[in-house]
Amino acid sequence: MNPACFVAVDWGTSSFRLWLVRADGAVLGESRSSEGMTTARESGFADVLGRHLAQVSAPGDAPVVMCGMVGARQGWVEAGYVDVPARLADISGQAVRVPDQARDIRILPGLAQRDVHAADVMRGEETQLLGCAERMKNSDCLVAMPGTHSKWVRVVRREVLGFSTFMTGELFDVIGRQSILRHALEGAAGVDGAHPAFLESLHATFREPELATNRLFSIRARGLLFSLPPTDAAATLSGMTIGLELAGALRQAPRDTPVILVASGRLRGLYEAAFHRLGLNFTALDADDAVRRGLSQAARDIWHIEEGQKP
Amino acid sequence: MNPACFVAVDWGTSSFRLWLVRADGAVLGESRSSEGMTTARESGFADVLGRHLAQVSAPGDAPVVMCGMVGARQGWVEAGYVDVPARLADISGQAVRVPDQARDIRILPGLAQRDVHAADVMRGEETQLLGCAERMKNSDCLVAMPGTHSKWVRVVRREVLGFSTFMTGELFDVIGRQSILRHALEGAAGVDGAHPAFLESLHATFREPELATNRLFSIRARGLLFSLPPTDAAATLSGMTIGLELAGALRQAPRDTPVILVASGRLRGLYEAAFHRLGLNFTALDADDAVRRGLSQAARDIWHIEEGQKP
Repeated sequence: MNPACFVAVDWGTSSFRLWLVRADGAVLGESRSSEGMTTARESGFADVLGRHLAQVSAPGDAPVVMCGMVGARQGWVEAGYVDVPARLADISGQAVRVPDQARDIRILPGLAQRDVHAADVMRGEETQLLGCAERMKNSDCLVAMPGTHSKWVRVVRREVLGFSTFMTGELFDVIGRQSILRHALEGAAGVDGAHPAFLESLHATFREPELATNRLFSIRARGLLFSLPPTDAAATLSGMTIGLELAGALRQAPRDTPVILVASGRLRGLYEAAFHRLGLNFTALDADDAVRRGLSQAARDIWHIEEGQKP
Repeated sequence: MNPACFVAVDWGTSSFRLWLVRADGAVLGESRSSEGMTTARESGFADVLGRHLAQVSAPGDAPVVMCGMVGARQGWVEAGYVDVPARLADISGQAVRVPDQARDIRILPGLAQRDVHAADVMRGEETQLLGCAERMKNSDCLVAMPGTHSKWVRVVRREVLGFSTFMTGELFDVIGRQSILRHALEGAAGVDGAHPAFLESLHATFREPELATNRLFSIRARGLLFSLPPTDAAATLSGMTIGLELAGALRQAPRDTPVILVASGRLRGLYEAAFHRLGLNFTALDADDAVRRGLSQAARDIWHIEEGQKP
């Protein structure tokens, strides 16, 4: 097979994104929706994919490479996990083909760390990791992919040595919405990385992670005793959850290890501000770009597409 | 006033407990219900109290001393806070009288730490603290009152130097019920302090508090990769939240400072097991006893009741 173009799909729990990509990497079309795995389990994976392929007028012979929850046990076809330590190239190598389809459709596996004292899994982020490969050169690095479940990956010479997930985004959400702190945060505006309460809380928790749940209650007490404004309360909670993550994540590698931050939007701003505050050596990459680049790299590996090829 | 008996009331957000106590400390009657502050705001504080007083046939001249959320801004009468550092005796000294009542009814204030970098409040636990006074002798101690919002208080020669609240119980609840970990904990039995997963997780987080949110996600990953049983998942979460609390709380005093644990039931068992695991020098006191003793101490201070007095 030597296709002139291919289709890249990032299919998560609650979102679907598809790109039609030319062999040289140019994006010819894009289609997005909220038909994530949860929806597609009802309406049928093949139908959802088919409608989006039609949307971008994908040629009948264009193969499809996908990542994300579509490959989970409860997804379309289970794509399993590649166990770490693993080379980045192993990810494409263990893609699973969706059976009984006219088109060649592959799903990339996740990564698993089968250590009972540091058990961890990722599904979707391994493709962003693949999309950062050019930035890694041949040296050590830490790749940070913040989110609901932030992933920190140690990569040495394009080999994934190990990784750690921190429940940062989910912790912020359940505490901010379900705990007694919801009163203190009510009406808060979005927090950005320049907020002094964010940076102060970040640094305090980074230095003293053992006081994390004490600082949580302190947000409540400052509301009662000092009428803490809701946006300051949200900034403090955000700084605390990210500070706790960084205190743990940065232990995985020597202090001067370069960090590649893979993030978009508001979250990118918060982590860039945090990394500056802590004096880290880092570069940033847009998360959407990273997943598209990673899928494209996988397509080139699987179907031996050469980047120089023109349609 | 030199009453033969008095009434002690612990009136929390969702619970009401009343004891009729003879001057010498003997309990003559008890009445409990779920008519906490939230219910009483609807049905009327005076009515709720009146029914319980009738229940134990309290004499018309028996004065009433109360603690808890009944003294909050949204309670019956706001009883404010005593600022720390404060002597234990200041708590009784700043009790607030409920106006326009035939009976002498007083509400004890809470404690506040008005330090913007370590803001904290308690309401109700100050009375348990007063109830531990006999155990304190004249030395340094830390008083631990675990719960939804665990309180750790540093007391030196019956002066409260400061305190810290840790959102331990609430963190366990919101994470266990509202986060992705709810799947891993589904069907879990109650955890006791002898559970190996509890003690292992406790010690791991005590040593490395910065990995707290990583260990949270690890519970999820162990469910996927190693079919972790739900009770082990709950024990791990419990050990993690308590280990994080202890890592922060024990920094407040030298390592050999005696700890007084004030707790009841299952929680008491978990903390006793944790304290043994960490080799702490501690004694334990039942939380219900402590609050009744504290209210009795306050009654003796306020109305100059002598313990030797007999009706």
